[in-house]
Amino acid sequence: MPDPDPFVVTPYEVKGRIDYDRLRELFGTQEITPALLDRLRTLAGGELHPLLSRGIYYSHRDLVPLLDGFAAGRPFFLYSGRGPSGPLHTSHLVSFDLCRWLQAKLGIPMYIQITDDEKFWARSGLSREETAHWGLENLYDILALGFDPKKTHVFFDSRSIAALYPLAIRVARRITYSNVKAVFGFEPSTNIGLVFYTALQTVPAFWPSWKEGRQVPCLIPCGIDQDPHFRLTRDIAEGMGYPKPALVHSRMVPGLLGEAAMSTTGSAADNALFLNDPPKEVDRKVRNAFTGGRATLEEQRRLGATPEVCSVWALWRTRFAPSEEEFGKITADCRSGALLCGDCKSALLEKIHAFRREHAIAREKAMTWAESAIVTEPPHPL
Amino acid sequence: MPDPDPFVVTPYEVKGRIDYDRLRELFGTQEITPALLDRLRTLAGGELHPLLSRGIYYSHRDLVPLLDGFAAGRPFFLYSGRGPSGPLHTSHLVSFDLCRWLQAKLGIPMYIQITDDEKFWARSGLSREETAHWGLENLYDILALGFDPKKTHVFFDSRSIAALYPLAIRVARRITYSNVKAVFGFEPSTNIGLVFYTALQTVPAFWPSWKEGRQVPCLIPCGIDQDPHFRLTRDIAEGMGYPKPALVHSRMVPGLLGEAAMSTTGSAADNALFLNDPPKEVDRKVRNAFTGGRATLEEQRRLGATPEVCSVWALWRTRFAPSEEEFGKITADCRSGALLCGDCKSALLEKIHAFRREHAIAREKAMTWAESAIVTEPPHPL
Repeated sequence: MPDPDPFVVTPYEVKGRIDYDRLRELFGTQEITPALLDRLRTLAGGELHPLLSRGIYYSHRDLVPLLDGFAAGRPFFLYSGRGPSGPLHTSHLVSFDLCRWLQAKLGIPMYIQITDDEKFWARSGLSREETAHWGLENLYDILALGFDPKKTHVFFDSRSIAALYPLAIRVARRITYSNVKAVFGFEPSTNIGLVFYTALQTVPAFWPSWKEGRQVPCLIPCGIDQDPHFRLTRDIAEGMGYPKPALVHSRMVPGLLGEAAMSTTGSAADNALFLNDPPKEVDRKVRNAFTGGRATLEEQRRLGATPEVCSVWALWRTRFAPSEEEFGKITADCRSGALLCGDCKSALLEKIHAFRREHAIAREKAMTWAESAIVTEPPHPL
Repeated sequence: MPDPDPFVVTPYEVKGRIDYDRLRELFGTQEITPALLDRLRTLAGGELHPLLSRGIYYSHRDLVPLLDGFAAGRPFFLYSGRGPSGPLHTSHLVSFDLCRWLQAKLGIPMYIQITDDEKFWARSGLSREETAHWGLENLYDILALGFDPKKTHVFFDSRSIAALYPLAIRVARRITYSNVKAVFGFEPSTNIGLVFYTALQTVPAFWPSWKEGRQVPCLIPCGIDQDPHFRLTRDIAEGMGYPKPALVHSRMVPGLLGEAAMSTTGSAADNALFLNDPPKEVDRKVRNAFTGGRATLEEQRRLGATPEVCSVWALWRTRFAPSEEEFGKITADCRSGALLCGDCKSALLEKIHAFRREHAIAREKAMTWAESAIVTEPPHPL
């Protein structure tokens, strides 16, 4: 009997109604438990980022030994990345928001990989000019979230290749075509760039250890869909003398049109809020967004709405209601019928526009140091 | 019925008694005709290199339009390479000897690729330290053959990757796993470095065109076993706006033990004369080399010997008898029985030792400029 509601989650495809618990079991990852959240809160000086407290990050690999090490005086570094296929949208911020917070709270280094090569290989419709252009644009947006210029390092693949390649050569010998076919579902028609790519995506996880000649632990916050990339990384780590990177996995942020993820691979630009959307577009998209509201105002006042299926609530939850008090009130008022969708959207739009104004200023500043953060030299020749 | 005397010729394997005419037909290449040799002689000012006049280079692709272009004022450049798995042996000089001669006669640029990444991927027994070490050692030996420091450029893969990668990204999107599987016979267990590698081997053929923003023709002298690599290069050239590289193909130089090629992939170090063999080793190897001689001296004086099967004659033919007069006399005296194998070997050893003395001096000089020939910067960011 076919699965009545199948879902697909791979680095190159997310579809269907995702059963996150089942996905965690399928992937063999661990749950982020309340006890683990308490440890994180303590390490961070008593606070917890909403992405953690609200269960967006819900799964991990080896977070416990990583935190044990940190508590014992062995700092880790953060690694996240972006495939620059176009402008960033709000759900792309999920991993970088957590990284920025962890960097600020724990004072640790951040490595950002911009994969302008991989996106060129993965999307036949994109030109190199486009992936390089979006690579820089995306980088400015990421750094503007508040990363520390002194502790933030960027691998911009096409420009950082000299820094990455000596280690990539060693990584690539340990991964077979059969490995990548199994993990990514590649076909014989897949180009050889994409086949090779996972070697380059692995390198940043080992790079600080390679540079410093000692075991430097790594934490990778990523969407659960990106886990397969790093399973390969973890598989080869010990054989190369590097620690296995730990991971924390987030749920996918639902799209504005109610889809499982804020993907824009198709033509659905209305499914996502881009950072470079003109203000009127933002208004229009939020006004048209799929909600958990009722068919009529009267019905909604009487029965309340359903935040769990609402794309607007997902935006509050992931980014635009930083205080638990505010988020709790929005959720309760939605459920009770006290908050109508139109008013909720107006309030959200105010927050979004305020963020965009601040972000534009921070972005100008980030542009002044972005180039200097790009790593171009290898620490060793071999 | 099985082929009674099968042979295999791929970039990763050469075995059996090679039927070179049939190989040319199988590969679909053209014959280097006497008329074409005449054209080359004229362009080179009346001389022909022994590797051409003696039929070692016997096959080509698109040499005619290349020479037409040269005669019409469109110079080409030369491209050859070396996978640094160990010391060079004399048959590795076949492509570089021709390149050096063409550079001197035609005043054209030479690009040399040292594939220290590829050899690490292709040979699980080699360390990166080894392929990097042999890369430099091989490079000194190659440059010492007499290349012009002003017109000779080196891509040392691990160190030139920044110069190669922007173009490699574009190349790799045009080659599928299916393509490389068909050409190289890769298995699912092949590592992803080797799968990717042909993209990097293609880049030098297009690099001057990319750099100069115009079509710069390319000639690649190589062993016929390397032709498959460049078939992929030729297949994608026009789609990328670059000229298809022309090729001239050499026969394999038989090994000292009488094998089809001077390969040392197995344990047969005695099959090849390495440039770094101690002089006594050279003596020993040549004294033990397989010849076309007879069972007894008496028989040989009476019936003569068979140069075509002799590994010593192959060394005279390819490198150590530059004048046609000398080579003709050796061949005739061998065939008539006037020249006995022991005397022939003594005469050859004198030539080899003289070459090695000169080469050692030239090598010291090459070491002074080798580093400056290594290209490390891309001409354009994209």
